[in-house]
Amino acid sequence: MEKHISYHDLMEMNKSERTNLVNSVGGFKSVCLIGTKDRQGMTNLAVFNSIVHIGASPPLIGFVVRPDSVVRHTLSNILETGCYTINHLNETIFKKGHQTSARYAKEISEFKAVGLTENYKDDFLAPYVKESNIQLGVKFKERKDISINGTILIIGQIDHLYFPNNCLCEDAFLDLEKANTITCSGLDSYHKTNRLDRLSYAKPDKELKSIS
Amino acid sequence: MEKHISYHDLMEMNKSERTNLVNSVGGFKSVCLIGTKDRQGMTNLAVFNSIVHIGASPPLIGFVVRPDSVVRHTLSNILETGCYTINHLNETIFKKGHQTSARYAKEISEFKAVGLTENYKDDFLAPYVKESNIQLGVKFKERKDISINGTILIIGQIDHLYFPNNCLCEDAFLDLEKANTITCSGLDSYHKTNRLDRLSYAKPDKELKSIS
Repeated sequence: MEKHISYHDLMEMNKSERTNLVNSVGGFKSVCLIGTKDRQGMTNLAVFNSIVHIGASPPLIGFVVRPDSVVRHTLSNILETGCYTINHLNETIFKKGHQTSARYAKEISEFKAVGLTENYKDDFLAPYVKESNIQLGVKFKERKDISINGTILIIGQIDHLYFPNNCLCEDAFLDLEKANTITCSGLDSYHKTNRLDRLSYAKPDKELKSIS
Repeated sequence: MEKHISYHDLMEMNKSERTNLVNSVGGFKSVCLIGTKDRQGMTNLAVFNSIVHIGASPPLIGFVVRPDSVVRHTLSNILETGCYTINHLNETIFKKGHQTSARYAKEISEFKAVGLTENYKDDFLAPYVKESNIQLGVKFKERKDISINGTILIIGQIDHLYFPNNCLCEDAFLDLEKANTITCSGLDSYHKTNRLDRLSYAKPDKELKSIS
């Protein structure tokens, strides 16, 4: 049986149910830890599932932040220092990653609070997560304020990219399953994946092939 | 062994390799079919993996489009009619979904070309995909031009939501695996998922629990 829920039904639900449902309906999402540092050297780590590809040339990646949420340290640190890291969540660290969403005081680093390790490389100011297998060093480029609900799209340029050597395929596709990267749904559900297929570039009168 | 690739390495790669790699590094993504119709009644269907949650109250969802790509019909139809549908890809239809990315002529509907069925409900102008188990009817609300690379973030309000009754959990979390929804990585890789866990709301001095 199919269920139909309208905008008005959604607006009449209680807040926690609406949050669960609306966060689920967009499908599976990327789930990453964003690492930052403020000018005083205090580090911050926060889990995000609003990461979106913006473009490949130049290499740009975006994420959406809510200014009123626990992640405000992430935003202020990025605006202060101009840089941040994006670190893939994997099966080994997803509980620690989820725990970073707790509202820790500004003087507590989530790295220490949840038991993850700061990692510094190639003179980049922001801390990477050592336990993450795919790590991006990102330079802040553009901020887009979304007036309709006060959220902000932060766009950055990928300056550094680290991953296990054996994850890179011949055509430069990165095998995320080999790196143990996981996905999430809703606000709190974490999932491993199993590849169904890679499909060839689609053309109008050509049959799709598997890319092995 | 860890591999390091810098911004300059990325910019020196050939275009197809850079596209594959940069599209992979953001992690697993939502993959949906966006259905639209123009004023003359011609329908369009296109696969997108740039969907992002914007907010729950009001219920808002976004996606990023490239104005120079095959998806331009999607964009012009949305701006023309103010509405579109977002339909989850599942294991049964992912090859047909991928095929919608071929550059069909304007006078050919991708629904017909790939063999998916238009579905109309509740007086909503844009076509849903009948073979998709989770369907959203979305009203266009805001457009954000991303000057740095000419892409556009399209934000819409969820006016209608359809899903199988048995996917809705008690707390209004939607079980996407029960609906057969899949995820993707890179430009062409499709994956099923297996839930690892759902975790309780994180608080600083509280241990996380599984939500069953």
